[in-house]
Amino acid sequence: MNFIRKIINTRTKDDEAFFADLKKIIGFTPKNISYYKKAFTHRSIKEFDEETGNPVNYERLEFLGDAMLSAVIAAYLFNEVPSGDEGYLTQMRSKIVSREHLNELGRDLDLLRFVKSNIARSKFGENIHGNIFEALVGAIYLDRGYKYCNKFIEKRVITPYVDVPKLEGKITSYKSLFIEWCQKQKKEFVFDVYEDTGNDTIKHFSVKLFLDGILIAKGRATSKKKAEETASKRAYFVFQKELSNL
Amino acid sequence: MNFIRKIINTRTKDDEAFFADLKKIIGFTPKNISYYKKAFTHRSIKEFDEETGNPVNYERLEFLGDAMLSAVIAAYLFNEVPSGDEGYLTQMRSKIVSREHLNELGRDLDLLRFVKSNIARSKFGENIHGNIFEALVGAIYLDRGYKYCNKFIEKRVITPYVDVPKLEGKITSYKSLFIEWCQKQKKEFVFDVYEDTGNDTIKHFSVKLFLDGILIAKGRATSKKKAEETASKRAYFVFQKELSNL
Repeated sequence: MNFIRKIINTRTKDDEAFFADLKKIIGFTPKNISYYKKAFTHRSIKEFDEETGNPVNYERLEFLGDAMLSAVIAAYLFNEVPSGDEGYLTQMRSKIVSREHLNELGRDLDLLRFVKSNIARSKFGENIHGNIFEALVGAIYLDRGYKYCNKFIEKRVITPYVDVPKLEGKITSYKSLFIEWCQKQKKEFVFDVYEDTGNDTIKHFSVKLFLDGILIAKGRATSKKKAEETASKRAYFVFQKELSNL
Repeated sequence: MNFIRKIINTRTKDDEAFFADLKKIIGFTPKNISYYKKAFTHRSIKEFDEETGNPVNYERLEFLGDAMLSAVIAAYLFNEVPSGDEGYLTQMRSKIVSREHLNELGRDLDLLRFVKSNIARSKFGENIHGNIFEALVGAIYLDRGYKYCNKFIEKRVITPYVDVPKLEGKITSYKSLFIEWCQKQKKEFVFDVYEDTGNDTIKHFSVKLFLDGILIAKGRATSKKKAEETASKRAYFVFQKELSNL
């Protein structure tokens, strides 16, 4: 048991690598790394707290992270959508914190690479991506409090994924909106997509969007479709005035 | 419209009284009183924001307060019940933030006295107590942030009402536990209950609990039953060792 404690409290070389990667993902320096280790420990590891005998894994942190995520998103929507009543705000939040969306978030950050388990990755099931994402939010709360949870969620959820006009159903696809506009204006467009994984551990794609031969926006994401959508969204913000008149 | 704005931004004599009462309830000095005014404005007032045209009432604040309440209670239970898994913690939280419980909280603080409306109080329905309580939490978040929400919820929800052994079903009534113990120990007990409303706006009761003629605990609440339960709970903590051996 002392052996386990030692592992938790002393930084090994593996820890240093984990610490560095974690810092990149969360965007600030973690103080107590043991919370984060727990957030990436699968129940199959069968580790138990030596004092209480309680299992040490990410499952309870999911509960905490889920609550913090809901609170941060609620506060964001409250401010961003001043015309929405509480039913509408609840509905919008459900879309953002849906199991499907959380899985996407966890997958895009490739959180699985940190998970310690005694079972094969193929046996994890699809929801592990979202569960680990929630557990990470829980660990951030324990380590640095609500403020840092807010920062992290802003950086990793709100800025890259939360798009109020899209959520409101006013825009379902920036790409189709952009194409429609080009066709009306008789402008030529090209989405130049290529694989661009770089130093990332999972496959990435980049896209260059040309309008009448001029590069107007770029996008990079884990799928071709997402990269195109990102570039189109950026083009939308450049040509917002024109595109809004469609 | 300027008239309404003036009412919101300038402190009237009514405001001063509201400010003083509010401070007692929340336990700290509010900064921006307009949030709290909104938390006590019923939709029947039909007030609209002069810039956006959005209705000014407590309904959206309920959404925000509900989210903050859930987050604060989640963090509390996470720390207090280290042996509970996430299903168990979720279940315990549901009990604490149940509609019924929130109505009780709002009623005990007599929040209704602050509500501005154009309909009769009898038409509000029972849930208004809890709704206003949630809206108040939302206003605290906007005014002072998460930390003060946490403080308020600790003061008004956790300390007086959240009782982990009771929630865990280990103790359903401190009064019956106490009585059972007295009977086993052949001790005499007296619950001396009397009306004790004092300066409060709603009826209160006090109870003195005597054991073999000696005053051992007191309780005060909005019903006889609650006051007796409070006194018994206090007696429980005094005689915890003996009572736990039952």
